[in-house]
Amino acid sequence: MDIEHYPLEIQIPRTINSASQFKITVLGSSGALPAYGRFPSAQLVEIQNRYFLIDCGEGTQMQLMRFQLSFHKINHIFISHLHGDHYLGLTGLLFTMHLQRRATKLHIYSQRGLEDILLLQLKYSRSVLNYRIIFHTIDPGEKKVIFEDQVLIVETIPLVHKINCVGFLFREKPKPKKINKEKLQEQMPVYGAGRLLQYIVELKAGADVFDESGNLLYKNEDFTLPAKPNYSFAYCSDTAYTENIVEQIRGVDLLYHEATFMEDEKDKATETRHSTAAQAARIANKAQVKRLLIGHFSARYRELQPILEEARSIFSETSLAIEGKTFEL
Amino acid sequence: MDIEHYPLEIQIPRTINSASQFKITVLGSSGALPAYGRFPSAQLVEIQNRYFLIDCGEGTQMQLMRFQLSFHKINHIFISHLHGDHYLGLTGLLFTMHLQRRATKLHIYSQRGLEDILLLQLKYSRSVLNYRIIFHTIDPGEKKVIFEDQVLIVETIPLVHKINCVGFLFREKPKPKKINKEKLQEQMPVYGAGRLLQYIVELKAGADVFDESGNLLYKNEDFTLPAKPNYSFAYCSDTAYTENIVEQIRGVDLLYHEATFMEDEKDKATETRHSTAAQAARIANKAQVKRLLIGHFSARYRELQPILEEARSIFSETSLAIEGKTFEL
Repeated sequence: MDIEHYPLEIQIPRTINSASQFKITVLGSSGALPAYGRFPSAQLVEIQNRYFLIDCGEGTQMQLMRFQLSFHKINHIFISHLHGDHYLGLTGLLFTMHLQRRATKLHIYSQRGLEDILLLQLKYSRSVLNYRIIFHTIDPGEKKVIFEDQVLIVETIPLVHKINCVGFLFREKPKPKKINKEKLQEQMPVYGAGRLLQYIVELKAGADVFDESGNLLYKNEDFTLPAKPNYSFAYCSDTAYTENIVEQIRGVDLLYHEATFMEDEKDKATETRHSTAAQAARIANKAQVKRLLIGHFSARYRELQPILEEARSIFSETSLAIEGKTFEL
Repeated sequence: MDIEHYPLEIQIPRTINSASQFKITVLGSSGALPAYGRFPSAQLVEIQNRYFLIDCGEGTQMQLMRFQLSFHKINHIFISHLHGDHYLGLTGLLFTMHLQRRATKLHIYSQRGLEDILLLQLKYSRSVLNYRIIFHTIDPGEKKVIFEDQVLIVETIPLVHKINCVGFLFREKPKPKKINKEKLQEQMPVYGAGRLLQYIVELKAGADVFDESGNLLYKNEDFTLPAKPNYSFAYCSDTAYTENIVEQIRGVDLLYHEATFMEDEKDKATETRHSTAAQAARIANKAQVKRLLIGHFSARYRELQPILEEARSIFSETSLAIEGKTFEL
């Protein structure tokens, strides 16, 4: 009797096709001088329940709180370069994590120097953080994978700036196929829950499923649906216009490219190794990305609409980096 | 004919009794963990057109911009101690001053360490500021005059904290007497503008004025009004309850004393070398100050009214440090 009821009690787990997320939230959109309530550079990236912070300008912790984003889940922080507007919020964030009794280790990816600065600050405040920080030193000269796990890869994008600076390319790995739950539920012979899970894993990986005697039980294409797309996001700030990055970021779903100036300040952009909105759009065009996000706006621009229009005249799928705004892939 | 008209053309300068200001504006009221939109410690002090910044927690530059306070006029920055919530906004502020083409030299008063940190940050960002910073090293062990000019004196107040920490006592020097303009205008014989100014200076200094032949021209008490009071302000953060400061701050017009906790967390206050609101009020009482301002609130308190009430039950003239609020003496 037990055996007869068995199939009724086992269920395909509800989370088996669970929605995976790829979200970028802007925490700071400002250039070096934070004017008009804009904050310096920082973005929170959420990919399949992993949280990454890119850059950490002054006030990043306040912005995380303001937008009610938990930073306990942030285990990896990427710093593009050591200009103050990209990292001066880091020490405050680390202290707050300490005060909030963080215990999980934290990975920080940065060029040489940040560790020295932090150690000096800890020394003079006589503080010992109650969690471990693991520093990963970035070589800014060449593109390199700096993070990889089961679901995604992060690599550096060498940029062109006054000091060494890298961008970050986040690429999801191909995702497992989705299970056609209705079809599978219909044709579920009597076997245990453990075996069901094993079959599901095989189906999601794209394989046909055979029973213990080697007979075909589920032909993969009949019991699965196509996998969700694997998305990609490139973060490029700060940089002069450079086509060197085009191949590396080709076709990404979202490109964040700095647009500190407009074309009327093109000389200033060249001189300070920054880009104009038109230049950012040209890169987006050449790399055939799906969408472009521009930010790192100079304090000379109170209104951002003209910057957006300049970019859109070249690449229509452009958005402005606005504090608190989330871009979902 | 020229000579006859001369007295009609000279005037007692309008600014001769100009209102002198003593204003304290709160830029940050938060303890180490900046919650509920509160920012870490910073206060702007304006005394007779001199601008002093006390502490410079993360986000201070944004707060100055938010409250439309010019920081070009700030020539002196005092840092109480090297816990992050009291100085992490400094480097960003210094960079912004640089970007805004500051040329005036800037004095920074701090304990040993801050200069090392800043130099390391400048080194890694390959920056050279376009104005000069003069570091003044504070000895935290004893009270000491660290700034003095014609109108005021600043001295340190040794506090009791986990690391060396000092408060700052701002005292105006006695002010010149005010000129009774109506009376002087009535009895103004024929002489040049230069001589009038000289006479005014003498009157304001409290002297009688004699003419060239040595005859009494103006008896001081007939042509002057009493001077405005000279005010004082003591800034005491962070500190455990300590009566050692009482004599030094006796009778000040405004005492800012930290009140990180309430009495229900008295043990926590003792352990972390902070004070409760009641303790701050007790110090205010013992030192017979005119008004008390409390701040540096712990993130455990969302609502501040209970903290205020705790202090007021002991010292009624207590106010809360609220971002953007200005206290005028």
